Amino acid sequence: MIKAAILGYGTVGSGVVEVLRTNKNQITKKAGTEIEVSYVLDLRDFPGDPVESILVHDFDVILQDPDVRIVVETMGGVDPAYTFTKQALLAGKNVCTSNKELVAQHGTELLQIAEEKQVNYLFEASCGGGIPIIRVLNEALTADRIEEVTGILNGTTNYILSKMTEEGSEFSDALKEAQDKGYAERNPEADVEGHDACRKIAILSSVAYGKYVDYRDVSTEGIAGISAVDIKYAKALGARIKLLASSCLTDKGCTARVCPVMIRPDSPLYAVNDVFNAVFVHGNMLGDAMLYGNGAGSLPTASAVAADVVACAMHPAEHIRGGWLADQLELMPAGEAESRFLVRVSGQPEERLPEIRALFGEAEPVTAPGVTGECAFLTGIVQEAVFAGKYKDLAGAKNRIRVMW
Amino acid sequence: MIKAAILGYGTVGSGVVEVLRTNKNQITKKAGTEIEVSYVLDLRDFPGDPVESILVHDFDVILQDPDVRIVVETMGGVDPAYTFTKQALLAGKNVCTSNKELVAQHGTELLQIAEEKQVNYLFEASCGGGIPIIRVLNEALTADRIEEVTGILNGTTNYILSKMTEEGSEFSDALKEAQDKGYAERNPEADVEGHDACRKIAILSSVAYGKYVDYRDVSTEGIAGISAVDIKYAKALGARIKLLASSCLTDKGCTARVCPVMIRPDSPLYAVNDVFNAVFVHGNMLGDAMLYGNGAGSLPTASAVAADVVACAMHPAEHIRGGWLADQLELMPAGEAESRFLVRVSGQPEERLPEIRALFGEAEPVTAPGVTGECAFLTGIVQEAVFAGKYKDLAGAKNRIRVMW
Repeated sequence: MIKAAILGYGTVGSGVVEVLRTNKNQITKKAGTEIEVSYVLDLRDFPGDPVESILVHDFDVILQDPDVRIVVETMGGVDPAYTFTKQALLAGKNVCTSNKELVAQHGTELLQIAEEKQVNYLFEASCGGGIPIIRVLNEALTADRIEEVTGILNGTTNYILSKMTEEGSEFSDALKEAQDKGYAERNPEADVEGHDACRKIAILSSVAYGKYVDYRDVSTEGIAGISAVDIKYAKALGARIKLLASSCLTDKGCTARVCPVMIRPDSPLYAVNDVFNAVFVHGNMLGDAMLYGNGAGSLPTASAVAADVVACAMHPAEHIRGGWLADQLELMPAGEAESRFLVRVSGQPEERLPEIRALFGEAEPVTAPGVTGECAFLTGIVQEAVFAGKYKDLAGAKNRIRVMW
Repeated sequence: MIKAAILGYGTVGSGVVEVLRTNKNQITKKAGTEIEVSYVLDLRDFPGDPVESILVHDFDVILQDPDVRIVVETMGGVDPAYTFTKQALLAGKNVCTSNKELVAQHGTELLQIAEEKQVNYLFEASCGGGIPIIRVLNEALTADRIEEVTGILNGTTNYILSKMTEEGSEFSDALKEAQDKGYAERNPEADVEGHDACRKIAILSSVAYGKYVDYRDVSTEGIAGISAVDIKYAKALGARIKLLASSCLTDKGCTARVCPVMIRPDSPLYAVNDVFNAVFVHGNMLGDAMLYGNGAGSLPTASAVAADVVACAMHPAEHIRGGWLADQLELMPAGEAESRFLVRVSGQPEERLPEIRALFGEAEPVTAPGVTGECAFLTGIVQEAVFAGKYKDLAGAKNRIRVMW
């Protein structure tokens, strides 16, 4: 038998308790030992809840109990999660977490402490909910050089974009619908501005390429600027708009960014709708592969945390190789990346074409049923900084969206 | 440094040599030690090939070399692969294989020997080419009770069905095209009759449910009976026909089968085309998830074999939990499963409707553009045995295909 403590009895923490209880037999068999939840830490009380008798309000109780070998951190946020995690690792306890903010910000240090102490800091649930992408990168695709990771990593924005596509609605209406259904927070900024996806692609890139990618260096643009007219153009092009979080190793260096992109059905990400997440990877031997699944939700995310708990139970005093080195992977300046854009401007296509051609070299006019009083063009492949410089002075500019083809 | 030997220098075996050579640095880092290919066993000679100097024709040379800790079996077929594998395991060597026939037929015994000898018998590449589905089932989804596994597990048939869908061609023409492109063998029976997919779903089900599923018990139907008219009906229904290999744990027992099925875009498998494979799994906590990737090809499959080699190099003298128990999982008789069918018969819909209703309870007429002189109906959900009994006496019956919705 091995003892675990759960920090934070919210959506994910309570899910972990449920997963460990519901699948107790299965999990005991896989782990080779019974896993007992000995403590749940939360500031609140939960009268009548099954965890009432093991609830504690003071982390020191857990820290001082040498029998607790696994700490499950499902509090979220950087503080006090950082302090608790560090103390737990330094005390020789394994830590499993769903906390992407903390992993993105302090993962390098926490992984080093885990290695020094020969325990584990595991974070499968920090990216992609129930999708086992971290374990696949660390333990399955071990014979490949991973050259690209591109994900739909945020369920809220994917739901909003899916609704806008299905219903032709505006961003604000789709956001409200997502909030009413509980898929978006009252304060949706972290999701819709891309900050959540940014942390996740930084973590995935660090694991895939083996060096620390700082999330603060990842160029990030959200979906608040996407309108029903943009969706009409996407449909006219046989495409869908997705918030893609992407990184790539090229000869010139590593690029990473989060932004809305039009993709066509030849991408396996095209069919990933609603609150589902997916991660596409390209390996130099494997070629293209994709993992797809529930990106959020209490039980799918808890299933991923619980799988990490099982791994720790199997190796309570052994450091599992994985994670990344302390060296930082410098990203190429975002402006040096290259993209093709759909550019929307006021006026008639024949009127604007010469100017657009002069600015962007190439320009293919695009029309969309039901859109009047403006026109749109597909540019050639342009350096981001060059494009931005020209776009900001473009008269009557309405929007620009990157396209994948 | 750890020494490996490769049995069979064909498509996959030569790919393994290439993967280990191309990604040597990456692999050494992941494995924590250098992996050296010391022998390649093949009946043929390869003058001028880089492996010429390590080529042997006698397996005993490998068996007797105590320094060889990992044997890579990429010969295919049951004999002599079975004998060599068993001897290697009994000699305390790890074995990694891409050989689905052998795993499906003798996996239980070979896994037991591996456990007794505290070495590993790993077979990631036996199902789904480069897709790391075995490792995900064994090591990632450890907190879930897996309740369903459904895959597109054969690239040849998926390519043929994709071409028939795109081009409106008949089975025989699409098969010929696949043969010309090297995607189908001259003797295509194992693929088109579903035998290959049958072995793979038996292996995946054994891993997912933890008990041996005998491939000889899996009800198997191939795609040779699918015609251009069937594809027209599928299109009229907004569906595609896929060869699905599927198993399911229900309250009544376990079902497993391979057969063509019409699926709609709400299934993530709908978008899996050409030679790609995908495996959908449903876990009781995780919900729906899918892995997608190259189902065949030298390098993707070799990448999966090489990942198993890395796992063995990390644990050369430690048995990694996984695989399945020796007890057999009895399957429900195929006739007890339930399906909805599209039934095609000669005549006019209004003429045939009363008879079809009388036979199958429900019957919804379906029309397809360009199809004349016959009609089709969607039945209700019917027990397979009941359906088969009625269908065999149905006058003017042309075909029947299961539908997923």
